[in-house]
Amino acid sequence: MNSIPIQTIKRLICYNRVLKNLKTQNTEFCFSHQLANLVNNSPAQVRRDLMLIGCSAGSSGKGYYVTLLIEQISKKLLSGKTHKAALVGIGNLGRAILSFFSYRQPNIEIPLAFDVDESKIERVISGCRCYHISEINKEIREQKITLAIITVPALQAQNIANELVDAGIKGILNFAPIFIRTPDDVFVEELDMIMSLEKLAYLTAE
Amino acid sequence: MNSIPIQTIKRLICYNRVLKNLKTQNTEFCFSHQLANLVNNSPAQVRRDLMLIGCSAGSSGKGYYVTLLIEQISKKLLSGKTHKAALVGIGNLGRAILSFFSYRQPNIEIPLAFDVDESKIERVISGCRCYHISEINKEIREQKITLAIITVPALQAQNIANELVDAGIKGILNFAPIFIRTPDDVFVEELDMIMSLEKLAYLTAE
Repeated sequence: MNSIPIQTIKRLICYNRVLKNLKTQNTEFCFSHQLANLVNNSPAQVRRDLMLIGCSAGSSGKGYYVTLLIEQISKKLLSGKTHKAALVGIGNLGRAILSFFSYRQPNIEIPLAFDVDESKIERVISGCRCYHISEINKEIREQKITLAIITVPALQAQNIANELVDAGIKGILNFAPIFIRTPDDVFVEELDMIMSLEKLAYLTAE
Repeated sequence: MNSIPIQTIKRLICYNRVLKNLKTQNTEFCFSHQLANLVNNSPAQVRRDLMLIGCSAGSSGKGYYVTLLIEQISKKLLSGKTHKAALVGIGNLGRAILSFFSYRQPNIEIPLAFDVDESKIERVISGCRCYHISEINKEIREQKITLAIITVPALQAQNIANELVDAGIKGILNFAPIFIRTPDDVFVEELDMIMSLEKLAYLTAE
């Protein structure tokens, strides 16, 4: 099903984010040039991307119907399914992420998390059940999870990534400040706040 | 001073991250091909980048001296200074970031944070003093802060960004799931975990 180019996917995800914000602000309709402006893109590109996934502009006088467009993009991106992710490392950052997802995102949920700390095992934190990391393989296979979030310290991240890949994980969101290596068929997204801040520090230095 | 191309800066930040990991693992020396391999780059590119900022390979039989290289890159990127950032939004994510930075990163510190919640005001969380958001302009100007981290909900993010820009902030790391708009001379880095997970969900869908 992954026939849409990855650059288009990235743009569709951006459109969806902007559209959800518009909806929160009670905006009902949106022209392609407005959407283009909000994502720093051209109106022609926006129309091309949306046509590619079968979205038409709706009423020509009003533009796209925001709610419908969100539904159509979400369906294309996430096949209308709820995707499940496992989190490894229930420290401050891990808890923040569990709390963040527990009420914000209907299409992605985090039903299970892992840690080495015995005091966290078997607890339910923000709707998520906590297991010992020795259960990674068993639980991820049983619950057919394909996405994982790594929030362990840098030195443990590669070992955890290896275990996750062994358990069948195909996509990893890595918060640990280290590059992790995975087989070619496993996708990794790195979110490194220190790198991002260092970049800003350099760019804004006088 | 910003004469190095931004793509080179991004690579230098990556090298630094990898080198710090090597140092933690007690690796003393590193060849350009090893560094290249760890950042998915070519050895020639690595050598070019490092020569551009005046780093020589050191002993030809051993490669770069890891500790020295980290120092040289850090000095170039951060001018050997400690950069200060302000955080706005002391919720779960905000606290996690404060805790994360309080002991991990000597070159960037977060000495002050802002929130609307009166119960947090005047407290010190992970070494960071908390103020009411009505103090943003005064405190950021007085403490000559140029970097900020936004961890407020989406609907408040743009207003907060406007206030930060008014107070003289030049670089913003935005965790709120909304694109914020700033004048051309203010840099924004977006860290959107929902977008990243949606992308992974799409890429790994069967």
